[in-house]
Amino acid sequence: MNAEIICIGTELVIGDVLNTSSQYIARKLAQRGLNVFYHTMVGDNPGRMQQIFETAVSRSNLIFITGGLGPTQDDITVQTVCDFFQLPLVENTESLENIKAYFSRLGRELTDNNLKQALVPQGATVFQNALGTAPGCAVEHDGKTVILLPGPPKEMQDMFDRSVEPFLEKYTDGIIRSHFVKIYGIGEAQVDAIMADLESGANPSVAPYAKDGEMYLRVTAKAQDQQQAEQMCACMIEKIRQRVGDQQIYGIDVESLQQVVVDLLKDKGLTVATAESCTAGYISKRITEIPGSSAVFAMGVSTYSNASKQKLLGVRADTLQQFGAVSAQIAAQMAKGVRLLSGADIGLSITGIAGPDSDGSDKPVGLAYIGLSDRNGEYVIKSQKGGFRDREYIRYTSASEALNLLRLYLLIFPQKFENEKFIKFHEKTIE
Amino acid sequence: MNAEIICIGTELVIGDVLNTSSQYIARKLAQRGLNVFYHTMVGDNPGRMQQIFETAVSRSNLIFITGGLGPTQDDITVQTVCDFFQLPLVENTESLENIKAYFSRLGRELTDNNLKQALVPQGATVFQNALGTAPGCAVEHDGKTVILLPGPPKEMQDMFDRSVEPFLEKYTDGIIRSHFVKIYGIGEAQVDAIMADLESGANPSVAPYAKDGEMYLRVTAKAQDQQQAEQMCACMIEKIRQRVGDQQIYGIDVESLQQVVVDLLKDKGLTVATAESCTAGYISKRITEIPGSSAVFAMGVSTYSNASKQKLLGVRADTLQQFGAVSAQIAAQMAKGVRLLSGADIGLSITGIAGPDSDGSDKPVGLAYIGLSDRNGEYVIKSQKGGFRDREYIRYTSASEALNLLRLYLLIFPQKFENEKFIKFHEKTIE
Repeated sequence: MNAEIICIGTELVIGDVLNTSSQYIARKLAQRGLNVFYHTMVGDNPGRMQQIFETAVSRSNLIFITGGLGPTQDDITVQTVCDFFQLPLVENTESLENIKAYFSRLGRELTDNNLKQALVPQGATVFQNALGTAPGCAVEHDGKTVILLPGPPKEMQDMFDRSVEPFLEKYTDGIIRSHFVKIYGIGEAQVDAIMADLESGANPSVAPYAKDGEMYLRVTAKAQDQQQAEQMCACMIEKIRQRVGDQQIYGIDVESLQQVVVDLLKDKGLTVATAESCTAGYISKRITEIPGSSAVFAMGVSTYSNASKQKLLGVRADTLQQFGAVSAQIAAQMAKGVRLLSGADIGLSITGIAGPDSDGSDKPVGLAYIGLSDRNGEYVIKSQKGGFRDREYIRYTSASEALNLLRLYLLIFPQKFENEKFIKFHEKTIE
Repeated sequence: MNAEIICIGTELVIGDVLNTSSQYIARKLAQRGLNVFYHTMVGDNPGRMQQIFETAVSRSNLIFITGGLGPTQDDITVQTVCDFFQLPLVENTESLENIKAYFSRLGRELTDNNLKQALVPQGATVFQNALGTAPGCAVEHDGKTVILLPGPPKEMQDMFDRSVEPFLEKYTDGIIRSHFVKIYGIGEAQVDAIMADLESGANPSVAPYAKDGEMYLRVTAKAQDQQQAEQMCACMIEKIRQRVGDQQIYGIDVESLQQVVVDLLKDKGLTVATAESCTAGYISKRITEIPGSSAVFAMGVSTYSNASKQKLLGVRADTLQQFGAVSAQIAAQMAKGVRLLSGADIGLSITGIAGPDSDGSDKPVGLAYIGLSDRNGEYVIKSQKGGFRDREYIRYTSASEALNLLRLYLLIFPQKFENEKFIKFHEKTIE
């Protein structure tokens, strides 16, 4: 089964809008083991659309088309497909009701153009649109399957997950299940090195993705039923866990590091406060992305300047003088300071050099010290991101290091927190 | 001149990597008035690549190809183009030196594969790669021009700006200059309404882009020389300024709202401190994205909880009780509180409801109050973002509202700050 993807839209072709739909569909098809060989983008032009469509039908069996389903004259997808297969258009009652209900919710008047969206090729399997008006559909004819989807990415994605995935089951000779193993603290090369034999397997398959300092492994299994597919995934995930290490896997199918941190804080009944220098709000922004984080996030301070570190956090002038603002000692004092200031259970701090320039000392761009304070004391780790990376990357990944330190702490709480990366320094410099 | 874009790479076709190069090139060509009709993505497969290339040559005069220039067997672009035009490969001395220098900087050994990258089609115009090893080139043959560019987006973009733009001058019958007018505080529909006649002009052309609550207008002029093109742009920008209003335009070709705010703070010799509730660090994170912002950013606090608002900022319990945390009164107290706490010239605050759920009161998701405090008093505006938007959008655009309020304040500083949107409330509730 060879698949290809066509995205219709002049706004895509002239570069006004980035095409993300093509990638979304390609990933979903890769998970099912369906081969995608071509992606094409073309404007809202009937002649060019027809030409592209005919080429696609000549070389692929399964063709996805996004866009061109709107209510205007520009929107030509349904007509092109009907003309090619010589299918009449018929009104889909459920789509019509959906369109009427949509406009009624918005309190707007329906036009004849809107009603045109309820027309679908005769015999098509119709996919209702939960977030908009244009229905999608699948046309199966002459051994070809053409799947029409709306252009707006949110509508397309929702429809794909809800309706197209079940529809595709019949093309994949069995049931497909996929899971994402999310890994922090091991680089791409290292993951490749320890996983190479697993990554070469076909079923279950293991595919690595590197993203912003993290690694994801997509595990996909094909089987006769769901239970068996899940079982195969679980076995592979267990193998990965043994190789990668339990603590490096921060979650399976979880949204983000910050989601895991917030969940762990809730589970353990703990609160955190943050004190940020180089990231200046990035950590607190990420923690509070999670709805409900107010229950666990006590306070954050962005103490960019030395003066604010001293005033708010009680960081000592002589320590700043002796070790500089980017030091393990200052990270420790900041973490302790924000814990005491906020009354939170945990203080989390970061001080570093985000670049593009250094701080005038001989410390390199990308260096950061991350501190964690609880009532037993302070723990500090050193982090060094590549100085050739840009400021945004350094800030983002340094914030991730801090979130990951907090995650590791929470994993073993209330046991004593031990980590081979801790920096040991003379106690009195912290106080 | 009809252009089309081909991006080569299996990682793109199976959805592992999002294709951003296609959009980058399309935008640049749109600025030059060159029509792009087709974009295609295809894997590192010689047969399919050849088929796609032949189709492109049959229907377009100007063909851009990214990717497939690497040192491995997979990398087939140069060979495909040479085979088609029956051109021999020749070694480019400058590229060879560049590759040797690159490896010498990294301290790595050269292989024969790396040296293969210095081979280009005979007669091609070679574009050196400032950020990597693979050179790009332009092959002009049989009335067709084929431009080969490296796959990694940073290398491609740098080469495009540095070498391809000047190369393309000859295809655009004159000199092209483009500027982006960046607008805050006017919606897309309103901009379209007041700009429709200007947007329909051909030279200079005006193209609108909506992005994350902002509007950009790209003004492009074509003329016989640079001075004339710049003059035409300047006249159009002046027209836009008159219609849109001076204060709504936050910059021409500037990076971001936060860049403008940091520049204005530096110009006026002022410092700011932030107190954030619903955005919890997003404003301070954005201000400190700008290198050198430490000179103007005194401190930020993320006071998500009522307790932290009271403790750090001196927000009053009775005001919280009477008006709720999301109120003009609390925004004013937060702004004043952080100004006094930090010793900064200006305190900037925000308190709102980012969703997905409301705060238990009857206040809608997307509501925020933004406060600004200086030694003369407090100014507060109300902001309401659509509740159907997601939490990230509401947080981002609410932070933008705060940055824009600060920008408007700084524009007229040290004159008295007046704005018709200010909320007037009884003075004693602020104190």
